[in-house]
Amino acid sequence: MPTRIGKYTLELNKKPVILGYAAVVGKKEGEGPLGEYFDQCHNDTKLGESTWEKAESRLQNEAVLLALNKAGLKNTDIDCIFAGDLLNQCISSTFGLRGLNIPFLGQYGACSTMAQTLAIASVFTESGAAENTVAVTSSHFCSAERQFRFPLEYGGQRTPTAQWTATAAGAMVIGSPEKKQEGQITVEALSFGRITDLGIKDAANMGAAMAPSAAQTLTDYFHDTGDSPADYDVILTGDLGQVGSNLLQQILMKDSIDISAVHNDCGLMIYDRKKQDVHAGGSGCGCSAAVLCSYIMRQMLEGKLHKVLFLGTGALMSPTSSQQGESIPGVAHLVYLKA
Amino acid sequence: MPTRIGKYTLELNKKPVILGYAAVVGKKEGEGPLGEYFDQCHNDTKLGESTWEKAESRLQNEAVLLALNKAGLKNTDIDCIFAGDLLNQCISSTFGLRGLNIPFLGQYGACSTMAQTLAIASVFTESGAAENTVAVTSSHFCSAERQFRFPLEYGGQRTPTAQWTATAAGAMVIGSPEKKQEGQITVEALSFGRITDLGIKDAANMGAAMAPSAAQTLTDYFHDTGDSPADYDVILTGDLGQVGSNLLQQILMKDSIDISAVHNDCGLMIYDRKKQDVHAGGSGCGCSAAVLCSYIMRQMLEGKLHKVLFLGTGALMSPTSSQQGESIPGVAHLVYLKA
Repeated sequence: MPTRIGKYTLELNKKPVILGYAAVVGKKEGEGPLGEYFDQCHNDTKLGESTWEKAESRLQNEAVLLALNKAGLKNTDIDCIFAGDLLNQCISSTFGLRGLNIPFLGQYGACSTMAQTLAIASVFTESGAAENTVAVTSSHFCSAERQFRFPLEYGGQRTPTAQWTATAAGAMVIGSPEKKQEGQITVEALSFGRITDLGIKDAANMGAAMAPSAAQTLTDYFHDTGDSPADYDVILTGDLGQVGSNLLQQILMKDSIDISAVHNDCGLMIYDRKKQDVHAGGSGCGCSAAVLCSYIMRQMLEGKLHKVLFLGTGALMSPTSSQQGESIPGVAHLVYLKA
Repeated sequence: MPTRIGKYTLELNKKPVILGYAAVVGKKEGEGPLGEYFDQCHNDTKLGESTWEKAESRLQNEAVLLALNKAGLKNTDIDCIFAGDLLNQCISSTFGLRGLNIPFLGQYGACSTMAQTLAIASVFTESGAAENTVAVTSSHFCSAERQFRFPLEYGGQRTPTAQWTATAAGAMVIGSPEKKQEGQITVEALSFGRITDLGIKDAANMGAAMAPSAAQTLTDYFHDTGDSPADYDVILTGDLGQVGSNLLQQILMKDSIDISAVHNDCGLMIYDRKKQDVHAGGSGCGCSAAVLCSYIMRQMLEGKLHKVLFLGTGALMSPTSSQQGESIPGVAHLVYLKA
């Protein structure tokens, strides 16, 4: 069973195992620097479906089926699936996974959802509440833009701090520690984040809204464990982009925590910012999910990365809350993965 | 640690304890048959806030603080809070709980959310992943109506199968089994539900959309445990209302499972259908949460109910999915509570 270390961190003693993973993305993501690592790249933004929302559901469905296939498991081998997305009432997850007949626990952590689903799934497998679980999330540029910002047809101009919602899904199969084989990746520890809100109101600057939560969760984790950034090969934030990444490093430096040598951000990795016109970088649940469930897993399995702190970051606003004058709260959850 | 029984059920061996509970409701709910059992009834639909959404956040905040108070605990004693609601991006939870500084895990199970949060919180406390947790959810008639159906000013006519979204929040503090004292209520077992979809498309008939999922989860539970309806004092569904309750009993009778002697539904309990013009009954996350966290808890603590199967039911649709021609998937999660 898990051991609490300090106030906010859980050490997993049995250490759940990543049995399979997969990432399915859109055209722009496939053309980015990590294109070769994704399992499936779709050129059609609708994936042959009639709407973008249904296309996003399909991204999630395909990612789960591919991850199950790599794990050598079937849907009936999975005890529960933890899934979420950015759409109202999490319909990408609901409709994408409806046919799988797996006990379904919908999660909402905005863009922190991959870390949240992976972390909760790990607690379930560690504790014996489940033998095999799946964690999955997705986002889609077109379904997100029209829900959160403007109709795409409007062609609204984007500000320099804006980020590009990735059309992507990532899924992981997390299995019971009893099944661990040589060379597999394990989940070692977790920290669940508290909501932070420093009063940022600019919905086109999510990186700034989320950076304080990432700083808080990371500070909590280092405080609880006594570790420092140098103990890890990479500290991987979800989708802070360039603005949020700079802010995160600045905030942490106030506490003399220097992550600059090991920090990277999925939002800065998924696109080539010089060529792909994504302004401050990528974002969306699917951004960190797809980067983690492709390039990062591969680097770990090939021995190039051993100790990875994955820090999913989410902005917990809605268009309604912004219209009502609210600021943008952030949250960040941390998962320590080891190869 | 929990033991899996059959394919879908978890028996909790240590048995987490309900340390505190509270329900905060609106005027109509306060005037209903359970009015005297709620901790707080608000006559103002906005609770003094500027919008209904902010009022709903406040319902949730008050319910948590009251439940913590009854448990004799502070926010800093809670290791994580599991919260969700019906609003887009779960903003009632986010903004209502933002100031509590408790690690936050957003949940989306539509109206099944009280069962989902309680069940996951129980797995966390049972396994030692948390010592004290909180499960909370809310709904608000006005914020839900305008988001899911029509502007209130429009005065749209409601169909006979329609249900009335409760303005209500319910919260529970779930504590480590080590703290159990004489006479406390414990969480004994859980079943997480699979998504069902029999093709219902009428968004004004949620009871019909959710009944098959309730039937499936209950059938799974009886199959896994070998129990029958007679083993329980009450089988309490969340918000099936009159139409869904009748359908649930009919569906179960096809498998020769007769729950008629012990079945009740929070949606049928919270209002007086003869006097309060709620058509098929109450609904919303807050409906089952408030009934469970008031009247049911009190009946259990007073020795009038011993064994309660609480079955939260959710309709996993959105206005967008319905506009795109989709049917309404349902899900139901089960928690067995014992006094």
